[in-house]
Amino acid sequence: MTVTDAVAPAEALIARLRATRATTEALSAPLSEADQTVQSMADTSPTKWHRAHTTWFFETFVLAPHMPGFQVYDEHYSYLFNSYYEAVGARYPRPQRGLLTRPGADQIGEYRRHVDAVLDRFVEQANSEQWAAAAPAIELGINHEQQHQELLLMDIKHVLSNNLFDTAYDHRPVQPAPDPGAINWIGLDGGVFDVGVAIERADAGFHFDNEGPRHEALITSVDVADRLVTCGEWMEFMAAGGYGDPQLWLSDGWHRRNAEGWIAPEYWQQTDSGWEIHTLTGARAVDPNEPVCHVNFYEADAFATWAGARLPTEFEWERAAATPHGTGAFLGSEDPGGTVAASALHPMPAPGEAGGVLRQLFGDVWEWTGSAYRPYPGYRPPPGAVGEYNGKFMINTMVLRGGCALTPVGHVRPTYRNFFHPHTRWHMSGVRLARD
Amino acid sequence: MTVTDAVAPAEALIARLRATRATTEALSAPLSEADQTVQSMADTSPTKWHRAHTTWFFETFVLAPHMPGFQVYDEHYSYLFNSYYEAVGARYPRPQRGLLTRPGADQIGEYRRHVDAVLDRFVEQANSEQWAAAAPAIELGINHEQQHQELLLMDIKHVLSNNLFDTAYDHRPVQPAPDPGAINWIGLDGGVFDVGVAIERADAGFHFDNEGPRHEALITSVDVADRLVTCGEWMEFMAAGGYGDPQLWLSDGWHRRNAEGWIAPEYWQQTDSGWEIHTLTGARAVDPNEPVCHVNFYEADAFATWAGARLPTEFEWERAAATPHGTGAFLGSEDPGGTVAASALHPMPAPGEAGGVLRQLFGDVWEWTGSAYRPYPGYRPPPGAVGEYNGKFMINTMVLRGGCALTPVGHVRPTYRNFFHPHTRWHMSGVRLARD
Amino acid sequence: MTVTDAVAPAEALIARLRATRATTEALSAPLSEADQTVQSMADTSPTKWHRAHTTWFFETFVLAPHMPGFQVYDEHYSYLFNSYYEAVGARYPRPQRGLLTRPGADQIGEYRRHVDAVLDRFVEQANSEQWAAAAPAIELGINHEQQHQELLLMDIKHVLSNNLFDTAYDHRPVQPAPDPGAINWIGLDGGVFDVGVAIERADAGFHFDNEGPRHEALITSVDVADRLVTCGEWMEFMAAGGYGDPQLWLSDGWHRRNAEGWIAPEYWQQTDSGWEIHTLTGARAVDPNEPVCHVNFYEADAFATWAGARLPTEFEWERAAATPHGTGAFLGSEDPGGTVAASALHPMPAPGEAGGVLRQLFGDVWEWTGSAYRPYPGYRPPPGAVGEYNGKFMINTMVLRGGCALTPVGHVRPTYRNFFHPHTRWHMSGVRLARD
Amino acid sequence: MTVTDAVAPAEALIARLRATRATTEALSAPLSEADQTVQSMADTSPTKWHRAHTTWFFETFVLAPHMPGFQVYDEHYSYLFNSYYEAVGARYPRPQRGLLTRPGADQIGEYRRHVDAVLDRFVEQANSEQWAAAAPAIELGINHEQQHQELLLMDIKHVLSNNLFDTAYDHRPVQPAPDPGAINWIGLDGGVFDVGVAIERADAGFHFDNEGPRHEALITSVDVADRLVTCGEWMEFMAAGGYGDPQLWLSDGWHRRNAEGWIAPEYWQQTDSGWEIHTLTGARAVDPNEPVCHVNFYEADAFATWAGARLPTEFEWERAAATPHGTGAFLGSEDPGGTVAASALHPMPAPGEAGGVLRQLFGDVWEWTGSAYRPYPGYRPPPGAVGEYNGKFMINTMVLRGGCALTPVGHVRPTYRNFFHPHTRWHMSGVRLARD
Repeated sequence: MTVTDAVAPAEALIARLRATRATTEALSAPLSEADQTVQSMADTSPTKWHRAHTTWFFETFVLAPHMPGFQVYDEHYSYLFNSYYEAVGARYPRPQRGLLTRPGADQIGEYRRHVDAVLDRFVEQANSEQWAAAAPAIELGINHEQQHQELLLMDIKHVLSNNLFDTAYDHRPVQPAPDPGAINWIGLDGGVFDVGVAIERADAGFHFDNEGPRHEALITSVDVADRLVTCGEWMEFMAAGGYGDPQLWLSDGWHRRNAEGWIAPEYWQQTDSGWEIHTLTGARAVDPNEPVCHVNFYEADAFATWAGARLPTEFEWERAAATPHGTGAFLGSEDPGGTVAASALHPMPAPGEAGGVLRQLFGDVWEWTGSAYRPYPGYRPPPGAVGEYNGKFMINTMVLRGGCALTPVGHVRPTYRNFFHPHTRWHMSGVRLARD
Repeated sequence: MTVTDAVAPAEALIARLRATRATTEALSAPLSEADQTVQSMADTSPTKWHRAHTTWFFETFVLAPHMPGFQVYDEHYSYLFNSYYEAVGARYPRPQRGLLTRPGADQIGEYRRHVDAVLDRFVEQANSEQWAAAAPAIELGINHEQQHQELLLMDIKHVLSNNLFDTAYDHRPVQPAPDPGAINWIGLDGGVFDVGVAIERADAGFHFDNEGPRHEALITSVDVADRLVTCGEWMEFMAAGGYGDPQLWLSDGWHRRNAEGWIAPEYWQQTDSGWEIHTLTGARAVDPNEPVCHVNFYEADAFATWAGARLPTEFEWERAAATPHGTGAFLGSEDPGGTVAASALHPMPAPGEAGGVLRQLFGDVWEWTGSAYRPYPGYRPPPGAVGEYNGKFMINTMVLRGGCALTPVGHVRPTYRNFFHPHTRWHMSGVRLARD
Repeated sequence: MTVTDAVAPAEALIARLRATRATTEALSAPLSEADQTVQSMADTSPTKWHRAHTTWFFETFVLAPHMPGFQVYDEHYSYLFNSYYEAVGARYPRPQRGLLTRPGADQIGEYRRHVDAVLDRFVEQANSEQWAAAAPAIELGINHEQQHQELLLMDIKHVLSNNLFDTAYDHRPVQPAPDPGAINWIGLDGGVFDVGVAIERADAGFHFDNEGPRHEALITSVDVADRLVTCGEWMEFMAAGGYGDPQLWLSDGWHRRNAEGWIAPEYWQQTDSGWEIHTLTGARAVDPNEPVCHVNFYEADAFATWAGARLPTEFEWERAAATPHGTGAFLGSEDPGGTVAASALHPMPAPGEAGGVLRQLFGDVWEWTGSAYRPYPGYRPPPGAVGEYNGKFMINTMVLRGGCALTPVGHVRPTYRNFFHPHTRWHMSGVRLARD
Repeated sequence: MTVTDAVAPAEALIARLRATRATTEALSAPLSEADQTVQSMADTSPTKWHRAHTTWFFETFVLAPHMPGFQVYDEHYSYLFNSYYEAVGARYPRPQRGLLTRPGADQIGEYRRHVDAVLDRFVEQANSEQWAAAAPAIELGINHEQQHQELLLMDIKHVLSNNLFDTAYDHRPVQPAPDPGAINWIGLDGGVFDVGVAIERADAGFHFDNEGPRHEALITSVDVADRLVTCGEWMEFMAAGGYGDPQLWLSDGWHRRNAEGWIAPEYWQQTDSGWEIHTLTGARAVDPNEPVCHVNFYEADAFATWAGARLPTEFEWERAAATPHGTGAFLGSEDPGGTVAASALHPMPAPGEAGGVLRQLFGDVWEWTGSAYRPYPGYRPPPGAVGEYNGKFMINTMVLRGGCALTPVGHVRPTYRNFFHPHTRWHMSGVRLARD
């Protein structure tokens, strides 16, 4: 949401812009028009909507304010592809995005190519003043589109799961995960530490507004598990009756569990030969060595209670990730496209020789923390419509840290705050334990 | 549902089978895969679902019981494309038909071609005994698919109406309707008359089970309007506050009107330049000379009450249509509802000389009657799964007669009983008045 | 709704008025204020609301139009206790009647006594012209209040059923029903018969508007069961899987059964010692010889299909009830449904000699017919607000005939048309079979 | 939830037990049985349910574990009057509490008197060991019942508000509030402070489990308003379009506002002569000098945003209340009964001579804080069923501090953590502003 005054050199930024735009189209390429059209629940959006919305974002926040003589591609699109920016004007009702059969996927492709061409023209012709004004918005647009790449993948996973057969996005084979071994508990000393991003500093690098201001946080001594909870451990929880014991659950979670009938993580299905999961590479047996994924906060919290532990707070997590205890190594970096690692679509990368003490911190699954998503001391949303980017969701949601296998590489950093309501499960979220 | 023992000559039946199958594909051809995939409300079905379901019907009720060595194309399809035949087995939940992205529209095309080829092989190889057994089921399959052609068109009309722009199925221009002149009231004497189809007779021709048995009905003397209520007359009703006066409405209708906010027929939209309607040829101004269309039973009944009249019973209608008073001429050239005239979409009879007294009886809009849809005396559903075709819907629904501009020509006959719940409006239904 | 011009002699009418008013209070007397306040579902009304609404009816339709200088008791009450008369003005939302804690039951008693006193004053002082004008409205008010006496009892039965214990309205012991023996089928010849009430005749007696006009109806030959279906027979249906076989059910009924989980009639509960029912005299074992009660139309229709029979039409029933085949005897002493027999609660006719062939026609349970509730030929609702009494409910409802054990005696006659939606079960409705 | 080992002397505890029990009955006395029976929404409970549930609590947590030979009063009651203790067993569905007409209010009175007598017997006969074991549970039962006294009053306020007229609980006249003057901003220095209760200390006094453990909290420098936001200020917010400007609202709040149509605080109604509010003393004009009340968190947050301020965190509040800046004076202490001050039912007490800088901290309205309700570091729910008292609600709820005019005096302390979901408004909640 905020970039430093000293933006990246123009060439590098333009190259990243083009690569990002191309990646979105590459991610959509395997999908039919039907796949791209359907909205499987109110939380998800159609693929073609993601493709159009990210384009609208560049029109609205880069070209319209900064390019002389700019004209919008189609007034209808401004209404159809605004996501939630109340300040920008009326918008198409979110739960009905899947009713839009027109424009079709090909027309969205034309729209993207048109706006890409206009962006090219703009960056070629912009004088230094125009460039200085537009560059932060371009940087934001890139990061915004990268977030939507992750959304696109997690949404299409849900869409395809509703098919009776042929549910794969990608048909490449998947290797079983190696045994991660027992949990080691890493002790962290308490104290006052700096957390978050120093938004006023020129060298802060790109970050979203909700990551700052940098401020002091008081942390008590804590033990943090060196790895994520596995599917095998989750099956023990299930076998022990964890889904049926109200003593383990928060009250809102217990009621929702009863209403929605949760008995296992999202995408798990019981078959004659055991538990199967739906993944982006299709259905396969649950791998007990993999980190458990697609559990919501209520499930994560109940599991931790059952295990005699708790979830770490977001600042405990951040401190762990920022110290020599954590590797900080993004294990999806093998991904040549700079976005999702092919191998990372499903089985988690082997911890390998990482050497660090804390494992699986970045790019495996989003890790639920015990912290409600609230503003940092001194937080102010940016002025204008982009002020709606993060701040207005700071209620009823919980913070997740670390990034998942679908997260673009640039979004994996210690200060990044993801957030979801405690009941949702279509995102790749898992569990790391902590204990006092 | 029932055909005479003396079936049509094989060649004619086979020709009709092929023509019917081809017509479905021709009707789908203008639609993109996105158009064909979406389900806009629980009552409608996706185009590709109609294409697949009608094919499944031939597999299930013709090939499976009658063709030696028949094998189903895909077991999944038996689950996905069963509509409501409980006796045949489990089926995919109706309101989720729009979540199926796979099989895609092209795969459905392959499915259709495959089954068409198997049907061809069957009719070539069948001995006379096999043919005699299968022919009635083929006849039923043809009529079933023709019903779905009408459904396909009325459903896609609803799907496309949810788009913000580019809502046309067909872009041909539409001519304004001529002034139909004032209503003339045609008097019919009361008495006991035969109604329905004599299902036991060899020369009864194809008909559905709900059209018989032929039986006596007692009708009182009545005046019937010689034409349909027009959009112009409907606008008078609206201007007189008809939608806001509870004294005109049945209680259930009034509550539903309040809950759903009806202020005009379905597809009417108020614009700065007056009322517009969405049609299969796109949006245009309401034509006051056209028959009003897309009104539900509650609206039709309220209008009749306001007009000091009532709706005819189904037997009054049938008697009127079966006597020299009725022309039986297809007046589709008036293009009611502004849609593509059925005759332009698929084979329909040329309009005859409109010399009769009663006008617009057949093929303009379905006409609501005041009769609840209940079984005729002595009615028995056929044995087996096809027994679910009509009988189980004989509650909470009202009978409509006459056929609309989208109705295939063979379905326009005096004894045909269409039926809908009193609150639905996405079908082409209008109003003819009667009075004691 | 309509009374003859020659009204009953004033003294008799006034005596009936006072008796009717007193009966309502006697029926309410066993109930605590809590019992009288609660509304257990949207279909039911609190006891104290029935007491007040029937009083409001006299104020609105008798005193206000006919008594010089009349003043309403409390303007608030006009809003609170209007049931559904749109023409009379706004009214309190029906589903929230149970939220009214004030006025309390005692205040309603004061309201009733006040209006009774005003009615007394009116009938004493009225001149012959005023009396002639008011008498039909008084007659209607009496019949209206009697209908609400039945509603009061069936509603309180539902209210009390929600208590965990102590669910009885009346604690008197109940005798087991005698064995009714096998069904005998009574043959009725077809033909054209007169049905309904000749509303234009001076000697028609009191009747509601929906019972006329008298008209000819064509009936086919039919066999009618001489008695009602018993609980024992219903248990056979249950044991045979009747509630789980979609082939037996109308489509709307099957969906609703699945949504609401019907597995037995309303008020039946499975216990360790077999099926129990909740009745107005508390819970007890199901008596297999009793007529089955508290089944809805869908259940009744499914049972008839399972039994290879059907429900009679309303005109078949009326013909049967009006001929020497029917006894017309009130068999309330069998205490259907295990409730307090109406005759024990308020004046009912003594059972006649049960020598007729058709049994249990009147006053046992309301009998579902296969006829949709629609207007008779030539029906016109009366002018003014009372026109809303019956006519506006003539959609989506089915006709019941015969009266139940809670029905006031004057409402048990061959032409009386009761009606309910096909899914409701809190009224005392049962089944008589017919077959072609 | 926890009491120190050194409990209060027996006599004092017993006296408080009896006083508390008597107060509940005194608070219920003005209410009719109808008033006591109705449940006006799922969040509220009937008065008679509160009376029974608090009694059940003593049976379950005091008498059953500690009194030899104890027998429950009625097994049914254990099911009916368990609130949410899953560990204790099944319970009656919460939203249906208003359907219970039996036991009646009088029977609940008998139940209370019976259990009071058993408690008396127990405290007379208990040996010192039994007493030591039971005393903490008695203390908890007293505090629990006091909490329900506040709930009883706020619930009955909602129940009575649904009446069309006669909505008062108490008819005593109310004096207008004095002008509180402009807000003064009190500066608090940041730093690390101790917050919460030292649960391990013998002299901690009674407190609930959620108030501890005592721990360090880091607070930044902040200015806190010296008084609550007034109704007059709220009307300025309304006049400025605050309820219609999405930029001021959290996203979940904005959607809920649209769904529920909030345009003013709960219980405000627009009349011809201005805004009126429903109170426990009936309806009267909004007093601009009173603290605004019955606003939810979303409204409070939107108001603060509009005012260029924010809500204080719970630790900022606690620090303010615990320092010489805050008066700490409970302004409702004039209440002789030890529970709700008569005068406090409505107009807030005058700040009077309190002399302190921070005003209206205690006992006026509950003050929304910006802190999500989450466990303190090291928090562990107590073992057994009472562990469900607080901990399981630590999600989706926000902390309120300070107590309202209905809060029993013993519950007004700096560490007390109240909590509600951010959308609810039937509790007496208001707003104090803070700013960085």
